[in-house]
Amino acid sequence: VHSRKRDLLDGIIGGTEETTTGVVRLRSMERAGELRYPVIAVNDSNTKYLFDNRYGTGQSTIDGILRATNILLAGSKFVVCGYGWCARGIAIRAKGMGAAVAVTEVDPLRALEAAMDGFLVMQLREAAPWGDLFVTSTGNTRVISRDHFAAMKDGAILCNAGHFDVEIDIAALEEMSTGRRLIRDEVEEFELGGGKRIYLLSRGRLINLSAAEGHPAMVMDMSFANQALAVEYLARNGTGLNNVVLPVPAEIDREIARLKLQSMGIRIDTLTDEQERYLASWEWGT
Amino acid sequence: VHSRKRDLLDGIIGGTEETTTGVVRLRSMERAGELRYPVIAVNDSNTKYLFDNRYGTGQSTIDGILRATNILLAGSKFVVCGYGWCARGIAIRAKGMGAAVAVTEVDPLRALEAAMDGFLVMQLREAAPWGDLFVTSTGNTRVISRDHFAAMKDGAILCNAGHFDVEIDIAALEEMSTGRRLIRDEVEEFELGGGKRIYLLSRGRLINLSAAEGHPAMVMDMSFANQALAVEYLARNGTGLNNVVLPVPAEIDREIARLKLQSMGIRIDTLTDEQERYLASWEWGT
Amino acid sequence: VHSRKRDLLDGIIGGTEETTTGVVRLRSMERAGELRYPVIAVNDSNTKYLFDNRYGTGQSTIDGILRATNILLAGSKFVVCGYGWCARGIAIRAKGMGAAVAVTEVDPLRALEAAMDGFLVMQLREAAPWGDLFVTSTGNTRVISRDHFAAMKDGAILCNAGHFDVEIDIAALEEMSTGRRLIRDEVEEFELGGGKRIYLLSRGRLINLSAAEGHPAMVMDMSFANQALAVEYLARNGTGLNNVVLPVPAEIDREIARLKLQSMGIRIDTLTDEQERYLASWEWGT
Amino acid sequence: VHSRKRDLLDGIIGGTEETTTGVVRLRSMERAGELRYPVIAVNDSNTKYLFDNRYGTGQSTIDGILRATNILLAGSKFVVCGYGWCARGIAIRAKGMGAAVAVTEVDPLRALEAAMDGFLVMQLREAAPWGDLFVTSTGNTRVISRDHFAAMKDGAILCNAGHFDVEIDIAALEEMSTGRRLIRDEVEEFELGGGKRIYLLSRGRLINLSAAEGHPAMVMDMSFANQALAVEYLARNGTGLNNVVLPVPAEIDREIARLKLQSMGIRIDTLTDEQERYLASWEWGT
Repeated sequence: VHSRKRDLLDGIIGGTEETTTGVVRLRSMERAGELRYPVIAVNDSNTKYLFDNRYGTGQSTIDGILRATNILLAGSKFVVCGYGWCARGIAIRAKGMGAAVAVTEVDPLRALEAAMDGFLVMQLREAAPWGDLFVTSTGNTRVISRDHFAAMKDGAILCNAGHFDVEIDIAALEEMSTGRRLIRDEVEEFELGGGKRIYLLSRGRLINLSAAEGHPAMVMDMSFANQALAVEYLARNGTGLNNVVLPVPAEIDREIARLKLQSMGIRIDTLTDEQERYLASWEWGT
Repeated sequence: VHSRKRDLLDGIIGGTEETTTGVVRLRSMERAGELRYPVIAVNDSNTKYLFDNRYGTGQSTIDGILRATNILLAGSKFVVCGYGWCARGIAIRAKGMGAAVAVTEVDPLRALEAAMDGFLVMQLREAAPWGDLFVTSTGNTRVISRDHFAAMKDGAILCNAGHFDVEIDIAALEEMSTGRRLIRDEVEEFELGGGKRIYLLSRGRLINLSAAEGHPAMVMDMSFANQALAVEYLARNGTGLNNVVLPVPAEIDREIARLKLQSMGIRIDTLTDEQERYLASWEWGT
Repeated sequence: VHSRKRDLLDGIIGGTEETTTGVVRLRSMERAGELRYPVIAVNDSNTKYLFDNRYGTGQSTIDGILRATNILLAGSKFVVCGYGWCARGIAIRAKGMGAAVAVTEVDPLRALEAAMDGFLVMQLREAAPWGDLFVTSTGNTRVISRDHFAAMKDGAILCNAGHFDVEIDIAALEEMSTGRRLIRDEVEEFELGGGKRIYLLSRGRLINLSAAEGHPAMVMDMSFANQALAVEYLARNGTGLNNVVLPVPAEIDREIARLKLQSMGIRIDTLTDEQERYLASWEWGT
Repeated sequence: VHSRKRDLLDGIIGGTEETTTGVVRLRSMERAGELRYPVIAVNDSNTKYLFDNRYGTGQSTIDGILRATNILLAGSKFVVCGYGWCARGIAIRAKGMGAAVAVTEVDPLRALEAAMDGFLVMQLREAAPWGDLFVTSTGNTRVISRDHFAAMKDGAILCNAGHFDVEIDIAALEEMSTGRRLIRDEVEEFELGGGKRIYLLSRGRLINLSAAEGHPAMVMDMSFANQALAVEYLARNGTGLNNVVLPVPAEIDREIARLKLQSMGIRIDTLTDEQERYLASWEWGT
């Protein structure tokens, strides 16, 4: 088997990776010495994660929730698990739609940013009985689990905009349920006894892909430009690279931003020669 | 002289730097081989620039403008030059106070973020005849200059929240003026002929320091914790360090975030063992 | 015919009206002496227009636009024609989704509110070459017409969330076009010569009804409660009422708000006896 | 005494009233038959309360709090008592400065609006142990009282932006305190035993007037235009008016909005003849 696998790798110069989760895993493989060819972390390009992850996931998650449920977001209590780039996009948009938003995190720095961005920050066990709607976007497993389901209100809605279908512990939810039925195309109702119902959207799979159309082309253009230019870069330089996770070269990143602005009809300023010199200097002061 | 300078350096283990501009300059010195001792870039610590620069400068700039002028921000056309961490703090708060906000930038990536954050993005020469109020926060020199003054409306107000007093070309403004007078403590009126007046706040020096009280203690606590712990780190490890600009160690950064959350009474979640393993894995998928 | 019409009215105690446009027209009929029975203006009930029109239309219009087009709202230039209750709901939500929003109005008071709410306010002929997307919500006819189409950018998108299909002058658009085709279910492309294309959504009919599912039940509950209780009121008091447009009684309005809060699990404060007396007094001061 | 009072009224044609509270009291006097001359409720003019009360009080209250305390609003838990026009201005601006905002109300309709505007809505006794800062703007007495003080956290800050100095029950706070001292010009610290301290700003008087400069001229211009034109109206029509509370005539209100827009350089659209006719019609439909 091993030799066959090696054969499959013949001629492979390298790869590119689009997602946060994928890059996390590739770095784990690199640390374990299991990476067999260089991979460019397209996800980590500024013109990718700052836009696709934030504005793309932010909008398409709201879109998915609305198509799945047609609930009113204004006045709802909206819990976002995570405050990475995808999660903060979701939190910002939920606030923009009139929800009261709480954020849960495991990272103190991100939690602090969420608080200073005006969001409620609390442990998920505090948020469980408070929230009307819960969206996971952490890249981790069993983020919402048994104890949280038990603490939730009748009518709570759950969905995932993170990765795979592991962020919500569906197996536990099924075990705790006395009955379940599909009440809309993407909405499954779980009865938990005592008249309490919990609604799971799209079986815990990515809500924006399952219930809506994924990200708009107007943001994926930048992600795919990174892919295309990263592949070109690999084709030109690949054989000289080590089997590590590499960043998208800064010139490519910057060029994509420049082209995107142009496509939006936005013109920006340029530094004068004097300003260029000033930025490189340390002699002037006051 | 040179030997005397060397004497002054005797016994210096290293330094720390608080500001974006300072770090830019120290890196220039490092590149030029002029850095005589290691310096820790406190500014670049997450618990510093993400908070002090953004939320601190954002609030204290608004505060300074209000104390200097008592103008109504709601309905005003507010131009922010720059979209670095300080500048975006200012832009967010101006929007939060009801202004229509335009951003000018020289960096395409930042310009793109500003646009997708919902701000108008334009060249300063387009913004000049549009804006009621202009705030510079770029770290550069002569950002607002002769041609911009000429294009501005009667009554335009200018101030700086970037660095020093060089961002607004005051010499040019004085040259163009037929008269000037102080009309409030921090407001100087320049007559430009034809009945047009431009108002310069605090002589172009930092508006938040000149007209208000600077940043709140509740955000400087993190910056100074970085300073104190960076100095302790230098004292313990300094003699073994090269004469370069160094980051604040990640453990210090993270610990400050943890302590700050605690002081705010915010509790966050912790990863389960299973979740720790999951994050480090690459075998599971779907 | 006239006598037959009278027959149809036999036994009618009164009516209720759900929409802003409908109430405007009924008042015109009342002024012209053409109103044959009393009508309760359900639309004008606080628990109707402040919620259904604002939060309902705001969300469902965004929803309709996303389903019709899957465009990215963040960074888009979004023009709302009108700043009535529906229109301001749309403007607020568009801003909340990251768009730069301009408002056009004919009423100076509303225009002033829009400006102080942080929106750009301009004439439609100024907005025409600026906007990426135009939404009408004025209740009037031919709001966007020939000259505006001519001034628009290639790629401009038009839709209506006001009433009927008259707010966009489709006949003029068709006349100006050299070709047209349906490119998505709810998106029609008009070629205007010189390579310029304009996209009309849902043939100018209500975008939230045509392309999405209309308002969420969670806001229509209040509107329909007004309808039901207004009908009950008519049944009880109708024969004693004149043939005029009447408001929903304040007690009904207030009771609906109280019930809605209860359904959302929100408890509020009550006035103490001392506070009731204080509000009715004028003797105390300072 | 009575005859002397009558003498004082000799030659008085009428009055005008600037504040919400004043109008409430004048209506009480009218109901009690105690109003001796006609009064125009300037406060209730659209160009007054929608702007002065909302955008004016909103900004100047934030300004007053910052000047009094220099606390960081980002990340703070900010409680607004009331959701009238002043209070909602404060809530919107606090949110715009990065605070998490809770609203308390006694009116179900306003409470519902606050919730759908994205604010937390709760009883004050729930908010008391949650908030970092409390602002009253209700027009009522003893809104924050003994039980609330007892439930508050160490370090809670209290201020008033409503009316007089009666909204916070200072007498009760003094009674409960073991000590007090002035720690900044407008900040008084009350010790409540067990190391708990509560901070009262400006002795509970209007924070925007005590600690800042009141509303900007750019919003008071509209209020004073209402005053001036209401006085002119009284001078012309006063002797024919009854001793009641009267609205500012709609033409005056509208004219002020028009002039204000003009002063801001904003041009708006005008209805075409066809559109005027359409608005008055009821024959066309679809």
